[in-house]
This record gives sequence, C-alpha cells and structure tokens, in this order.
Amino acid sequence: MRILFFVITCSALYSQLSVAQVDSTHSRWIDVIYKEALANGEAYENLHVLCKDIGHRLGGSPGADKAIEWGKNLLTQYEFDNVHLMPVEVPNWVRGKTEYGFFSYSDQKYNVALTALGGSVGSYGEITAPIVEAKNLDELKALNRKDVEGKIVFLNKPMDAMAINTGAAYGGAWDIRGHGPSEAARLGASACIIRSLSTAEDKYPHTGGTVYNDSLPQIPAAALSVVDARALSAALKENPLLTFTINLSCEVFPRRMQANVIGEIKGNEFPDKYIVVGGHLDSWDIGEGAMDDGAGIVHSIEVLRTLKAIGYKPRHTIRVVLFINEEFGNDGGIAYADSAKTSGTYHVAAIESDGGGFTPRGFSLQGTDKQFELFQSWSPLLEPYNIHIFKRGGSGVDIGPLKNDQTALFGLTVDNQRYFDYHHSNNDVFENVNKRELLMGAASMTSLVYLLDQSGIPAE
Amino acid sequence: MRILFFVITCSALYSQLSVAQVDSTHSRWIDVIYKEALANGEAYENLHVLCKDIGHRLGGSPGADKAIEWGKNLLTQYEFDNVHLMPVEVPNWVRGKTEYGFFSYSDQKYNVALTALGGSVGSYGEITAPIVEAKNLDELKALNRKDVEGKIVFLNKPMDAMAINTGAAYGGAWDIRGHGPSEAARLGASACIIRSLSTAEDKYPHTGGTVYNDSLPQIPAAALSVVDARALSAALKENPLLTFTINLSCEVFPRRMQANVIGEIKGNEFPDKYIVVGGHLDSWDIGEGAMDDGAGIVHSIEVLRTLKAIGYKPRHTIRVVLFINEEFGNDGGIAYADSAKTSGTYHVAAIESDGGGFTPRGFSLQGTDKQFELFQSWSPLLEPYNIHIFKRGGSGVDIGPLKNDQTALFGLTVDNQRYFDYHHSNNDVFENVNKRELLMGAASMTSLVYLLDQSGIPAE
Repeated sequence: MRILFFVITCSALYSQLSVAQVDSTHSRWIDVIYKEALANGEAYENLHVLCKDIGHRLGGSPGADKAIEWGKNLLTQYEFDNVHLMPVEVPNWVRGKTEYGFFSYSDQKYNVALTALGGSVGSYGEITAPIVEAKNLDELKALNRKDVEGKIVFLNKPMDAMAINTGAAYGGAWDIRGHGPSEAARLGASACIIRSLSTAEDKYPHTGGTVYNDSLPQIPAAALSVVDARALSAALKENPLLTFTINLSCEVFPRRMQANVIGEIKGNEFPDKYIVVGGHLDSWDIGEGAMDDGAGIVHSIEVLRTLKAIGYKPRHTIRVVLFINEEFGNDGGIAYADSAKTSGTYHVAAIESDGGGFTPRGFSLQGTDKQFELFQSWSPLLEPYNIHIFKRGGSGVDIGPLKNDQTALFGLTVDNQRYFDYHHSNNDVFENVNKRELLMGAASMTSLVYLLDQSGIPAE
Repeated sequence: MRILFFVITCSALYSQLSVAQVDSTHSRWIDVIYKEALANGEAYENLHVLCKDIGHRLGGSPGADKAIEWGKNLLTQYEFDNVHLMPVEVPNWVRGKTEYGFFSYSDQKYNVALTALGGSVGSYGEITAPIVEAKNLDELKALNRKDVEGKIVFLNKPMDAMAINTGAAYGGAWDIRGHGPSEAARLGASACIIRSLSTAEDKYPHTGGTVYNDSLPQIPAAALSVVDARALSAALKENPLLTFTINLSCEVFPRRMQANVIGEIKGNEFPDKYIVVGGHLDSWDIGEGAMDDGAGIVHSIEVLRTLKAIGYKPRHTIRVVLFINEEFGNDGGIAYADSAKTSGTYHVAAIESDGGGFTPRGFSLQGTDKQFELFQSWSPLLEPYNIHIFKRGGSGVDIGPLKNDQTALFGLTVDNQRYFDYHHSNNDVFENVNKRELLMGAASMTSLVYLLDQSGIPAE
C-alpha cells in the first residue's frame, strides 16, 4: 500500500496546525481515498453478485431474505465491527404469475407490455371494459361518475422532458401512480392503467408503489410501457369504443419480519457518536435493482472497506446501514430512526446514496445554516474530483426519519439523466452500471465521511 | 411555439438596460433554448441516421463520402444559409480484409481480438516471432537491439485507472500507440502490438492513428483488447518463449479530395464576424463513430436548428462546420484555418464538441485572461443547467488551428468517465448514446453561442 507513505497525519495534532496545513492533510487523505477506490474498489464486483446471484429483492420476498444474508456475510468478511441485523416488520405483496393486458377493437388485438403497480390488488380473472383517458389527475377529477363508472381509467401523463433534473420530472408525474388508482376508484372505475414514469421511449413498463386511499375501493392498477401508452392513446383517438383487458394475480400476504443490516468501524475518540452511510437493500420485484438501489448499497459498503484498506482510524464510529423496504413503506428507515431515538444514539451525520451508480456531482444537505456553511467550506477540497456542487435539499428516504436539530443529512447527488430510463423496470440491470462511475460515487461518499469525521459538524 | 411569448428582447436596446435586466433576458432565452432542445431536439434522430445508415467513415473512405453528402443535405433541409463544401485533401488508408493474431506455445493456440492501428503497413502474410514485452516506451528504449531484433514488441501500458479525468489518463498512455511502433522498429522489431487504450476490461480492441518516424522502417502495428493483453502478459510469464503471429492486409492509397461541410445563419449586425460550432465528421473505421464524433456533429447542427426554431436572429453569423479527417491528420481543421487566414475572415469564437454525447458539465476556454473573465461572468446564468464548470484548457483538435489573439476557442466539457470504454472501437455505437444526455450537450452549446453572440468577446 505504497500510497500510505504520502500520508502522515494525526488528528490530535490538528489544533496546532494552520488552516493551510489542515487543508493540505485533508487533500492528501482524499487523494489516498480516491486512489484506493479507483484502483482497488470492490463495489462493482459486489454489485455483480447482488444483481446476478440474488437479483430483485422486494421487501418481504425471499430475494430480500437472501440479500440480507449476503449483506451480513459481506460485512462480516470485511471484518467490520458490530455486524448485526436490526429486525424490521415489512409488508409482503406478491405480484403473482398472471400479468397481461391488451386492447381490442372489432377483430384487432394489441398486446401491451404492462406491470402491476406495487401493492395492487389482483383482478381475479380478466377485466374487460371501455377506456376513459385522462392526461392528469385534475382532468380525471373533473369527470362525472357516469362517464367513468365500470370503465378502465387510463392516466397518460408524461414525465416533463423539459425539466433539467429528471428527479423533479418524476416528482411532477408521480401523482398518477401514487394516487391515480384511488382517484379512479372514487369515480367507480373497474381498474386503472397509467403511462410508466419513464424518460425512455421504449417497451419497458416501470412499476412502483401505489397508495390506496383507505376509504375507497381498491382496484387493480398497472403501468404500460411508454411506447404502448402512446399506441393506446393513438388507437383511442381512432376508436373511442375500444376495450382494454387486464388480468393481474397479485396477492397481499401477512406482514413478516426482515431486517436492516448494520456494520461499523468503531471510532477512536467518539465511539458513541455515529456517522451513517446507507442505501436500501430492497428493490422492486422486476429487473435487478442495480441502480435502485444496488448502487447505493455497494457504495455504502465500499466507504467502510476503503477507510479500512487505507488504514484510516476514524474519530467517530462510521456505520453502514443496508436499509430494508424503502420502496414500499420505508419500514427500515423508520425502524432505524425509532431505535436511535429510543436508545438516545447520537448521529453526527448520515449520507444516503439512492440516485444510482452514475458519476457523482456533489451532495445535497438537509440541515442547518451553520452546517451548510461548514459544508461549503469543503468545496475547494472536492473541486479536483468534480464533486463540489453543494446544494440544500432532500437527503434520502431511508435516512429522512433521522431528521432532528443535531444530525446533518446528506444525499449523494449524481448525474441522473439516465436514471429514469431504468428505474423500477426490467431494464434496471447490472449491465447499465459503469464501473468507473460507480467507484467514483463510493470515493466521493468516503471523502465526505472523512471530512465529517475530521471536522465534526455543528448541531442546530 | 408558445414559449416564445415569454421572450421579448431586442439586442439594440441593451445599452439602455441594467445588468439585472440583461441577465433576466439572457435567462429567458437560455430557458427557451433548453425547452426547444429537450422537447423538440432532433440530434438523436440525426445521430441514428449517421450511425446506422452510414456507419463508420474514416477520412478518405466511401463512408466519409456518404457522410459529407448526408451533412450537406441535412444542412440544406434545415434551410441554413450558404451551405457549401470546402475541398480538403485527405489520406486514404484502408484496413484490408485480413486481420488476425494469435499466440502459441507447443500445441496451445490462443486467438486474440486485435485491430490494426490507423496508418499501419500491412504484414504481407503472417509474421510469427517471439515476443518482448515492455510496460512503457522507457522500458522499451532501455532494451538492447539484440534482444529486440526480429521479435514482436508488446507494449503493455494501461491507462491510469486512478486518474479522475479519463482524458488525462489517455494522454498519459497515448505514446505507446503514437510512437511505440517506430520505437520498436528502431531496435529492429518485426512488428509491434500494444494494449488497447481503453478504460474497459473487455474484448474490444481500440484502434487509433500511429505516427511513423520517417527515418525508421515501418512495421505492422495493432492493438489487442485489454482482456487479451492481460492474457498474453500472463502467458508470457509462464512461457517466455511463446510466439505471436500477426497478419494485417492494410494498404495506403494515394491521397484524395473530400470536404468540410459548412452552413450558416447570417448575422443581422455583424454578418462578417463568425461564431463557429463544429465537430469532426470522420470517425475511425470500426464501430459507428457515435461518440467520436457523431455526437459532436449532431450537437453542432442542432445549435443552428435550435436557434432557427426559436426564432432567434443572431447578431453575428453563426456557422456550423463538419470537419473532415480529424482522426488521421486534422486536414479539415488545418484547411479551414488556412482558408480563414487567407480570406481574412474574422472569427469571434469557435466551440468544438469532441468528447462524446454525455451529460455536459461546462466548457474549457483556450483564450485570453479578458476572455476568461467575461466567460466566468456567465457562470450564474448557466448554473441552473449544471454546465457552469468553466476552466482554462484545450478546446478541440479541429478548431485548434484557428488559435490567434482574437478568437476565443471553447471546448464542450462532458462527463467523460465512459468515453474511453467506447472510443475507437466496435463498441462506439449509437446504442451507447443516451438521448437526454445528447440533447443536453446541444442545448449547452446553443446557450454559449447565444451568450457569445449577445456579448461579443474581447480580443487579446
């Protein structure tokens, strides 16, 4: 490990050093971190195992059981401290084997690529009904019950191609998936189909959770690929009386126990103060969850592996958490924050990676002005790595429940132009992750953890 | 074109407006540019035609003839002004049909994936010889003639995985391709093979030009895929006496005439002052030249298409140049600059895109301090689009010869982590270009052209 010769540092000496000397020490450590991650990083190989040997792993599924076991074994192999599972109760929704749809008019039949939305009830056989198309929820809500009753509602709202940030475009279209099925049920619809939330013009349908309103009937709900949604919309213009047929055999089983997976490197000075890195171990039940959020999982594990490999002795305890079931209830994140509150565990900071294994660009901070000021002072240290775009904003769903006045929450910001091409679809596979981009993400998180560990971070 | 309602501007009014008013007008125009490029951009479809209907197009080849015709037709269809060809003499190297290599030891034979280096002479049948491996040119130069004579030199220098900028890593390894074959010939080698200049661990060999030293014999030269270079190196350790066989049927034909393709939007105020955008129309003769530099070609065309589509009337003449033969002599770039000098054509600025169709991050400026100061003042206008990383540095090979005291030369900077996975290989295909990333690049160049056109740029 020749690169270690360049680094001679001792955190206890910091108070006697000038700002320039401290910055120079920081620079050298960050250089060592990057060299280790890029030359010897194991995140890509770990992701391959998670995607190819385990595959998709919806919370509650046997795939998630395997992933939990894999995670625990890997953290143990890396000889992290205090490797353990934190039990978490999760839902257990199963897609079932039957899943198809088509539209037809006189003797024409057009099969579409569709995927049940997460949590959807089954259709108990084929449902065939005329279609009523709406461009968004407002258009749907403006319809009369008599125009919708018994029909299949088709919500055909594209993600905004003109948005610079695809996350914002996703947020702007999310309501048709989250609330569309219940709003359709409110008007008596027999089923609800939506255009997939996707930036790609292809035949992959994209799933994701829908949120049934407890006071309304639960109707079957599915997403069509973008190409099929376009085709259906065009066909409806020609043949408004065409019918759509859907058949889904989804079932909900009783909730069951799974777990967050946790490992640590014990801190030298402040063993009871934690800096957490994490992502979510679960994925949707199609594709391989490579970007969402296999990348975040291997990023987070790689942070601790890198720190150990370069011989860095942290002041605070650095903890990795592989959260379970972010996708369909955030049970792992809520359980972790509840446990931290109950036990009075002090979290200095938490960093989440849940934007995919793309080239990192910086971090967003969900925190105080004082914290942002300190954070911004690190920009020159990270500029050589092109990860110095620092913004205030959300951090991550899993770590969100840790929000309080003391803990700074960070989200890794990556270049997300391609993210929603893959997200929640059969196209979210290992092959779409680039090794260098993935390793860069891990190195950037490790660098932030290093800076947080060295500097601490002010509360409030 | 509803978005145009938001934009009411007149450049003649600028002198009466405050800085804030000007910036607000600029912001609105840039917003209009982005919306047009992202919602209606045609760069992706144009790239599909260039890659799939024409394919690779080495300078001097029939593919390049077709690309020139395609380019001229497209600029004409877009109704750009003054569409014309500028004749350029180019070399005419042809790979030939025979191209293979293998290494063998007793009865073992291992076929490798290799590609002749651009410009390589043919081998006139199989050459079989023992191998001498060197890690870099210095190691090769330190060898004695008797240890090299008659053998095949194998230069096995990887690109530096630890470099943050893959372009720098490429620059650091380029010498084995550029000068390796002649340095091997200086010591009497019969042929030279190199490890491909690639960031990917795969079986695609990567070609690229080699530069024969006129005073030395020309020997056949080829690149092995990274996987095969590793295999050969490992095999050599076990069996130092193994032989390598290479057979290349490359030929050099007489130079011939091709052309740069040029089109314009005439300026209202300064029709004789030019702002140029461009990339290179030629590619290497394997793959489809999608990233290198199909992306730059469709980026540059899209700049003018976008400006026309939004109804922008430029003050200066905006010119697109599709340069011919960047890859193997920069003939198009040199001819264009010579012509500009001879005719005394004033170029305010030139912008090149030759880094692939990836997410843009900003621009590099090859220019004066004054120019950099003005350039930097635009950073807040481009920050909302994440293209505000402005650096001093190189611009582009094609526009490089335009360098003088008055013309500011800009290079589009994109996220290049994946670039050298594809570069000069059969893997540089349309499928690896993402539509949104490509359109973002075009929008960013158009925004810079708009700012340059509005502000002019100081000379010296």
